[in-house]
Amino acid sequence: MNAVNRDEGIWSPQGPATVLSEDSCWAILETHSFGRVGLSNENQPEIFPVDYAVTGREVVFRTADGTKLRHLTANPAVAFEVDERDGEEAWSISLRGEAHVLHDPSRVRRVEQLSWPDWVPTKTYVYVAIHPHVVSGRRISRHLHATRRDETSE
Amino acid sequence: MNAVNRDEGIWSPQGPATVLSEDSCWAILETHSFGRVGLSNENQPEIFPVDYAVTGREVVFRTADGTKLRHLTANPAVAFEVDERDGEEAWSISLRGEAHVLHDPSRVRRVEQLSWPDWVPTKTYVYVAIHPHVVSGRRISRHLHATRRDETSE
Repeated sequence: MNAVNRDEGIWSPQGPATVLSEDSCWAILETHSFGRVGLSNENQPEIFPVDYAVTGREVVFRTADGTKLRHLTANPAVAFEVDERDGEEAWSISLRGEAHVLHDPSRVRRVEQLSWPDWVPTKTYVYVAIHPHVVSGRRISRHLHATRRDETSE
Repeated sequence: MNAVNRDEGIWSPQGPATVLSEDSCWAILETHSFGRVGLSNENQPEIFPVDYAVTGREVVFRTADGTKLRHLTANPAVAFEVDERDGEEAWSISLRGEAHVLHDPSRVRRVEQLSWPDWVPTKTYVYVAIHPHVVSGRRISRHLHATRRDETSE
């Protein structure tokens, strides 16, 4: 797994940033449940929102969409992203890895016991685990200019 | 452009859904400023968050990251996604299209006048326009079960 071991301060074009350690990334992922999966279907990227849960160091999401599953079978390489921002701060966690549809009934039963939103109407879901090769995250302070510097007046 | 012309009710595995018309999608995109771009680098998808603005029927985002730009030059096919959810409702708008780095100085000046967050520290941004081939969006009612039906007790 390619990830930094501790939070590290850096400079980014969006402001002072902190590169999050792998442990910090997982701690944040575990306290959220809504993210986005990125696919590539014959080099055309696609993004779709998903409910997810963390089990061990894998992300599991659920879907019922035949097209997505066909694309995942053709190319199991996926990206996964969770983010949040308010006026002062933003963070984003990204994974890159490989997707595996869960077929083993006992594994599916364990995954069903994880914390999922319980929507109506229910339907049989397909669960897909993402085994990550790369985990990365950063937190950025987003301080607004108090006054904008007018470069044309100098 | 491949999109429906009016909002249409459908059923989705996540609950009753409305497929949004192209006009509804653009109206929502115009009132938001934070989304996610999906790339595919040699069939490995990547997702990164961006500030964006809408001009005409294109999305423009800004970046200063050399790696992303290299990947976009190698494969200009992109996805772009904006979403929001609260307890009752969720919506998601997705675009698929082609990315073009803006080089023309007068076009860049016009794009700089759009509504961008004005972060400190500033840096020279590269602006990238997405010309969409497909625009799609849906709004889903997310009503929780009042009580969970216990299927094992029947």
